[in-house]
Amino acid sequence: MNLEDALTQRLLALKAQAGSHPTSLTRLRDGLPGLRVAVDACFLANPYAAELAVDTLREAVQSREAFRRAVEWYPAQETDLARLAAPLLGVAPEQLFLANGATEVIRAVLANLPPGPVVVTLPTFSPFYEFLPPQAPPLFYTLPKAQGFRLELEPYLAFLQQERPRAVIWVNPNNPDGGWLAPQELAWLLARLPDSVERVVLDESFDHFAQPPGASEIPEESLAGSAWLPGKDPRVVVVKSLSKDFGVAGLRLGYGVMSAALAGQTRRHHLWNINGLAEVFLRAWVGEDFQRRYRKALHRYRGDLGVFFQGLGALENTGQVRVFPSRGNFALVELLGHTADQVFTRLLARHGVYVRHCGDKRGLNGEFLRISARTAPENTQVTQALEDVLTGRQTEQVKQD
Amino acid sequence: MNLEDALTQRLLALKAQAGSHPTSLTRLRDGLPGLRVAVDACFLANPYAAELAVDTLREAVQSREAFRRAVEWYPAQETDLARLAAPLLGVAPEQLFLANGATEVIRAVLANLPPGPVVVTLPTFSPFYEFLPPQAPPLFYTLPKAQGFRLELEPYLAFLQQERPRAVIWVNPNNPDGGWLAPQELAWLLARLPDSVERVVLDESFDHFAQPPGASEIPEESLAGSAWLPGKDPRVVVVKSLSKDFGVAGLRLGYGVMSAALAGQTRRHHLWNINGLAEVFLRAWVGEDFQRRYRKALHRYRGDLGVFFQGLGALENTGQVRVFPSRGNFALVELLGHTADQVFTRLLARHGVYVRHCGDKRGLNGEFLRISARTAPENTQVTQALEDVLTGRQTEQVKQD
Repeated sequence: MNLEDALTQRLLALKAQAGSHPTSLTRLRDGLPGLRVAVDACFLANPYAAELAVDTLREAVQSREAFRRAVEWYPAQETDLARLAAPLLGVAPEQLFLANGATEVIRAVLANLPPGPVVVTLPTFSPFYEFLPPQAPPLFYTLPKAQGFRLELEPYLAFLQQERPRAVIWVNPNNPDGGWLAPQELAWLLARLPDSVERVVLDESFDHFAQPPGASEIPEESLAGSAWLPGKDPRVVVVKSLSKDFGVAGLRLGYGVMSAALAGQTRRHHLWNINGLAEVFLRAWVGEDFQRRYRKALHRYRGDLGVFFQGLGALENTGQVRVFPSRGNFALVELLGHTADQVFTRLLARHGVYVRHCGDKRGLNGEFLRISARTAPENTQVTQALEDVLTGRQTEQVKQD
Repeated sequence: MNLEDALTQRLLALKAQAGSHPTSLTRLRDGLPGLRVAVDACFLANPYAAELAVDTLREAVQSREAFRRAVEWYPAQETDLARLAAPLLGVAPEQLFLANGATEVIRAVLANLPPGPVVVTLPTFSPFYEFLPPQAPPLFYTLPKAQGFRLELEPYLAFLQQERPRAVIWVNPNNPDGGWLAPQELAWLLARLPDSVERVVLDESFDHFAQPPGASEIPEESLAGSAWLPGKDPRVVVVKSLSKDFGVAGLRLGYGVMSAALAGQTRRHHLWNINGLAEVFLRAWVGEDFQRRYRKALHRYRGDLGVFFQGLGALENTGQVRVFPSRGNFALVELLGHTADQVFTRLLARHGVYVRHCGDKRGLNGEFLRISARTAPENTQVTQALEDVLTGRQTEQVKQD
């Protein structure tokens, strides 16, 4: 067995241990100590915003006293922090549930679904079906590859009218394909949902990336996405991760916006779910200075996204890939002449490029990778590495320390 | 209305907002900006261990790169961290559920109780009845003040035999009174529980403080408490907060040890519940060097505890208080000539001493405060302040910035 085959086996074994999520970088390092990860194109965050967040936090806890408070003291209760954060989103504190990452929001929101079937589109972020409680079983609606995984409104609505579910889940832009519904499309659907639907879970974790890269300035209010919507339509629950926009996955921060009644029920028993360092971040996050700097970081990243999609799109000329249209900060790539195992391993072994192997994603029929946009030079590195692997060029040898 | 009355009203309003938990120091500062808190004797952690934890963590994330990883990267999944931590507790990783604070352990453990009544002793830590799901209603067993809130084995067992609950909850040492059952008493009860009892939730968050202060050296294995027990008796679930022992409430770390089958059920949907900085702490925590230094910090604190209880006990001579025997790092104090409102406010206003007002604690009939042990000089400050307030001496005036 050659070195690359051995590496493949080890990598796929690690992947299997992580279930329906990618192997963490830490686990990758522990499991393959000699491996060099040059670009983490599996990770879905804005790297410029991450720099801002890291600098902001380091400064905020620079003194021993400030650091000590974040570590030793009990953080504020969740309701206090909701009061702090709500004005930025333009919602009442009673409507906002702050959580230990979006996964906690999803868990709590799904646990409180009305009993009955839930229409879940496939492919999607797996916790949206894995976390469903027994009384709210999933009813899958598979997005057709032939239509580029776009959610076509009419056939989807016909499906809902036929099945009459109690709840529906929309991830917008959708993960892993980046399919997107415009606000007027969401409104169209909301106006026509069958009356059986009492709950609409709308995940907007990738919403900040959905605007076209051309937009010259980012209006502050656009960053709250559909947070205004549950106030008008109490069926809607907006779910959002802060990990993607702000590059703070380690802090575990996410939120849900919903009717005050539902938020009261959802937040029950979540007393001190936000940790001390995340609290420090939230206190900076609500400030005008941070928001202004964040909009700059987002604007820069959006510009890079355009170039990233162009670069990936050009690879379709090789005849080796199909790149699906995306409004997220990532692209779903179908491999036409290789297996995902092959390309995933070679990208990592030969180029240190770590991408998302989609072998565990339900609703994907074929060989798929998801590639996320990082900094501009990293994106170039990723595209070149992918081209090398797809066309059989071998610019670097397998490295082993 | 004089200044102290105004302060009293404001403090009690803040307390009311916090529900069945004390007002956080942050909220206290925000709500009463002029207030000076000199000693936080509400907080239940070992201050020497907190210094060790803060120093350890600061060093571990001193470089920008290490700090960035803790903030930006996804932390390891909960199952990975359980694998890391399990050997220190002498249990199999499959038996260990690591959580975002003990409150998350309690929430998850109670949500998975078998249906039927749960015997909860009163007074106790309120989430143990507030978090019970509808199918597992509490059946209260009130510990009598006349017996110093001690759990007398025979009458308690008779109650269980009569009521035949499906589950029982023991907090050992108990919060807020510090009542304690020795290992042989636990064994006595476990051997005699009616066969209706399928689950025994044993919270040992204060167990490290329960040994007599005289013990000259702390054996490493004693720090795992009853973690070995669920392996022998699958009815038992051990719950533990790391906030108290290690002074890391801001990190949100707690764990549960239980049968592998139950742990599998309990940890469902808790993917990335441990934040990045908490992960850094866990990686240090399992190390020999940290554990050795921790045992020193615990030994020092246990020594102080003896002096603390003596000092408080001496106040019984004033005829103004009764101090209940405690094996925790706190004492429950009944006020015989004042209201809790009066003493709580005066301690804070005149002396900057913040204690736990027990007005919201169910099962306490009378006027009670809970006072926790801090560093030796702080304990002296607290005891003197309490003596001043109880005997009507006024060594300091109400301060206002």
